[in-house]
Amino acid sequence: MRVPYCVPAAMSVEFSARQSVEQVEEGRELAPKFDAEGLIPCVTTAAGTGEVLMLGYMNAEALRRTIETGEAHYWSRSRQVLWHKGATSGLVQKVVELRIDDDQDAVWLRVQIPGDASCHVGYRSCFYRSVPLGPGDFSRVLKFEEQHKAFDPKKVYGDAPNPTKL
Amino acid sequence: MRVPYCVPAAMSVEFSARQSVEQVEEGRELAPKFDAEGLIPCVTTAAGTGEVLMLGYMNAEALRRTIETGEAHYWSRSRQVLWHKGATSGLVQKVVELRIDDDQDAVWLRVQIPGDASCHVGYRSCFYRSVPLGPGDFSRVLKFEEQHKAFDPKKVYGDAPNPTKL
Repeated sequence: MRVPYCVPAAMSVEFSARQSVEQVEEGRELAPKFDAEGLIPCVTTAAGTGEVLMLGYMNAEALRRTIETGEAHYWSRSRQVLWHKGATSGLVQKVVELRIDDDQDAVWLRVQIPGDASCHVGYRSCFYRSVPLGPGDFSRVLKFEEQHKAFDPKKVYGDAPNPTKL
Repeated sequence: MRVPYCVPAAMSVEFSARQSVEQVEEGRELAPKFDAEGLIPCVTTAAGTGEVLMLGYMNAEALRRTIETGEAHYWSRSRQVLWHKGATSGLVQKVVELRIDDDQDAVWLRVQIPGDASCHVGYRSCFYRSVPLGPGDFSRVLKFEEQHKAFDPKKVYGDAPNPTKL
């Protein structure tokens, strides 16, 4: 039977089975470890500045699509859907490099972002506040490290529900 | 009753209760969210280069100790103990800045490390391998982005069990 010309190729980056510590740590096989919920955490940094933009999660499909398309895909835990970052906001993340860690249970994406913004609250990075360090028995007042929002989330997301959960 | 002079202060950085999305996202209160296992993920980057060194996890005590001492503490999931990073290897991480993300369920540490090394396998970063990107139905051969180990893990850790789990 002839396969019709227009059928797209299956998304089928292959993952190896995890067989030994040496294979996972010192080898060249991609053998990611997903947690009990089928997810792997992903650190995403700005390729230019090294700033950490966000910490997200991928399921196997999100990781495969990210590798195949070169655009960051995540699993949205709040919405329980595959999440092509930027599909709503236009803030697509172009992946410059994808790395995996020693025991292959975490991913690091270096990305380029349009408009210099990534966070749904409107800031450049999700990590826009710092915590004062040092000894002492008291509450810590967070310091805003970004003084202004890069975009107005109401204009970008409209009435879409806020993903933050208490 | 007089408190003896030499009693150390309790580790008691206070965390706020999570009451509203606005408080968590836009406020100045530290109200971290720990997962079902009592953990919060932590991205650790080199303060100088911005390179991602590791992705670890903290329980409440590890986060408090990190804030109070300015040295990175984690919860070791493989060993199930509070983990003062560097206690065995000497590779203590001095925290230059601690940030928390929009919904306060992730931490970012910028650290200085001695000996330019952080990973238990011997590399500078735990993320010493990259995954080739692009379309195609095939396994991906990982590329080593660090050519040489920064230290010999056998000399540093001796016979301590390897933390990597299959």
